[in-house]
Amino acid sequence: MTTPTFRAIIPAGGAGTRLWPLSRRHHPKFLQDVTGSGRTLLQATVDRLAPITDEVVVVTGQAHATSVAAQLPEVATVFTEPSPRDSMPAIGLAAAVLRRRHPEEDLVVGSFAADHTIIDGAAFEAAVIAAVAAARQDYVVTIGIAPDNPSTAFGYIRQGEPLPATGVRPNDGVVTAPALGVWQVREFVEKPAVETAQSYLAEGGYLWNAGMYVARANVLLGHLDTFHPELAAGLETIAAAWDTPDRDRVLDEIWPTLTKIAIDHAISEPLAPTGAVAVVPADLGWNDVGDWQAIAALAGVGVRSDAAVLGDFGDVLRVGSPGGIVATSGKQIVVLGIEDAVVIDTPDALLVTTLAHAQQVKDIPALLAEAGRKDLL
Amino acid sequence: MTTPTFRAIIPAGGAGTRLWPLSRRHHPKFLQDVTGSGRTLLQATVDRLAPITDEVVVVTGQAHATSVAAQLPEVATVFTEPSPRDSMPAIGLAAAVLRRRHPEEDLVVGSFAADHTIIDGAAFEAAVIAAVAAARQDYVVTIGIAPDNPSTAFGYIRQGEPLPATGVRPNDGVVTAPALGVWQVREFVEKPAVETAQSYLAEGGYLWNAGMYVARANVLLGHLDTFHPELAAGLETIAAAWDTPDRDRVLDEIWPTLTKIAIDHAISEPLAPTGAVAVVPADLGWNDVGDWQAIAALAGVGVRSDAAVLGDFGDVLRVGSPGGIVATSGKQIVVLGIEDAVVIDTPDALLVTTLAHAQQVKDIPALLAEAGRKDLL
Repeated sequence: MTTPTFRAIIPAGGAGTRLWPLSRRHHPKFLQDVTGSGRTLLQATVDRLAPITDEVVVVTGQAHATSVAAQLPEVATVFTEPSPRDSMPAIGLAAAVLRRRHPEEDLVVGSFAADHTIIDGAAFEAAVIAAVAAARQDYVVTIGIAPDNPSTAFGYIRQGEPLPATGVRPNDGVVTAPALGVWQVREFVEKPAVETAQSYLAEGGYLWNAGMYVARANVLLGHLDTFHPELAAGLETIAAAWDTPDRDRVLDEIWPTLTKIAIDHAISEPLAPTGAVAVVPADLGWNDVGDWQAIAALAGVGVRSDAAVLGDFGDVLRVGSPGGIVATSGKQIVVLGIEDAVVIDTPDALLVTTLAHAQQVKDIPALLAEAGRKDLL
Repeated sequence: MTTPTFRAIIPAGGAGTRLWPLSRRHHPKFLQDVTGSGRTLLQATVDRLAPITDEVVVVTGQAHATSVAAQLPEVATVFTEPSPRDSMPAIGLAAAVLRRRHPEEDLVVGSFAADHTIIDGAAFEAAVIAAVAAARQDYVVTIGIAPDNPSTAFGYIRQGEPLPATGVRPNDGVVTAPALGVWQVREFVEKPAVETAQSYLAEGGYLWNAGMYVARANVLLGHLDTFHPELAAGLETIAAAWDTPDRDRVLDEIWPTLTKIAIDHAISEPLAPTGAVAVVPADLGWNDVGDWQAIAALAGVGVRSDAAVLGDFGDVLRVGSPGGIVATSGKQIVVLGIEDAVVIDTPDALLVTTLAHAQQVKDIPALLAEAGRKDLL
């Protein structure tokens, strides 16, 4: 008899170049309180998961391990990757190590991005609980976000047939909550053109892919073995050495050889046509904090709809400049006559643009590198 | 027999609120090198006048007297006004004191703003020499700028009939130069609406009023006595006490009672209908450095037409942002996708706007004062 448990894996990597100059290579967005909530994005992610999990673990790069540990004194397990190899190796390694550490458990793992925000914590809990229940029926389960606009910034999930109501079994080891509907996933579709996105919304049955996956560790690693046997074997070898003196030697040997791939491409996309992927549609007030437009939307909530400010409101004077976002690092900022202005002032770099150019900000770090200013990346 | 002399008076006051945050109450634009020329506006003004005058004097406020003296070691005479009362009292006081100091001279005085720029120094010299020659025929002479666009930022001078050629008499005490044409002034007109300005350019015979006035001291003070006898008398009383131990006592008593008025309103506008005002039309590459649009035009000349920068070019990266002006105080600035952007970064305040709003910048200091930030004016 095994004990049902649920452990969360948070891959914490990625510099967030679209949030330059606030987010930097050595000071990425997940380590920052970019919403003015008082908690960093990573801390808020852990705060959301802790009440509904048996454990939260973080997988991060060597450069950020110390900061992550300092921000999360309550998280005992921080896995450090020698180099970034995208989300599948990070999540797969954590799943493999956790499975070895807890052989007596019926272990469900869930992966959740370190740098997203969610306003409706209760809806998030209900969705995760429903996802865990479906995962215990051997589905790979994702939580799909009900779209409120035809965004071209996200991939979409096409819903299939509803699954029979699963409920939450009393012995799940998680909080009991009303079961949410769960659907099979027909397919995952890449970030669409705006016309396509509009047709998705008109047609219905499409959800945003927020990159949240919940599955039995055995199921997840089994699918990985099917689709990417070398990667699965490599991770298993590393996991076997992880809690031994051989860890560093084996990591050094194998990690650099692993395929660099996202979990979406590695498992969920090829698996969906087989009917083994499920989705819990949810309305969470989710935000991927992906660019300044996303932050403007966040920062404006409940504050002043026309004047999103990171920093001290008193330091910002807007005249005829509705919309947008201003981040001040203590200096008085005056914005005059620019709609949707994005003005991000930091001690060593200042960005001035508008929301319409939010996606292009990602090109700035490369341009600065070309100009010899790698210190600003 | 009196000696013909020409002395220049530079009223150096005015904070230049349209150039906030570079120009401040305690650090006005005339004390700054806002063009990147290596000389402050005041220094450049003195540089232009020194070769063609017997003396250059500056009239400034108490707050700036020390800075003015430090910037101009070659200028022996700096008149300090107890409080700003606009240009007529400043110029009239200097003229009255100079006349008392040099009773043996046939003294012509010229007043020139401390914070304008002129690209064609030779054309300026020729225009001043022609103006001095006309002044010796008892005209109040202004130098009118040939307009190259229907600006609404300046008053206009309507030319009347040409005056007989005056030439430059060998005993003028100034450099000999070919005589320029001199015209009677029919009238001065206030800053026009754009349609009116367009009709002026189409019609011809209109010049920009750059506020430069040249006249015999006796003539200027005589007209002042006609139009504003109390002001003339007050200035004469102060001038009589200026080089005595009574200066401060008399200043304290009389200065605050003087009418606050510009020389244009006090003398040139009411005098023009009598035919006693003349104008020397000139094409000087003149710029009043009045707002960020003016600075953008200046800074772009001969550098990069699409990237006017004050400060280090290497600190500014523009992507899809032609036109405008960026001033950096050492921090990296990135402007993305904003045409004609005005980004003025100083150690304690940052302005973000566009050239189209250049004139509205003058309202910012008052708004900051309302917000309790008088330290930033």
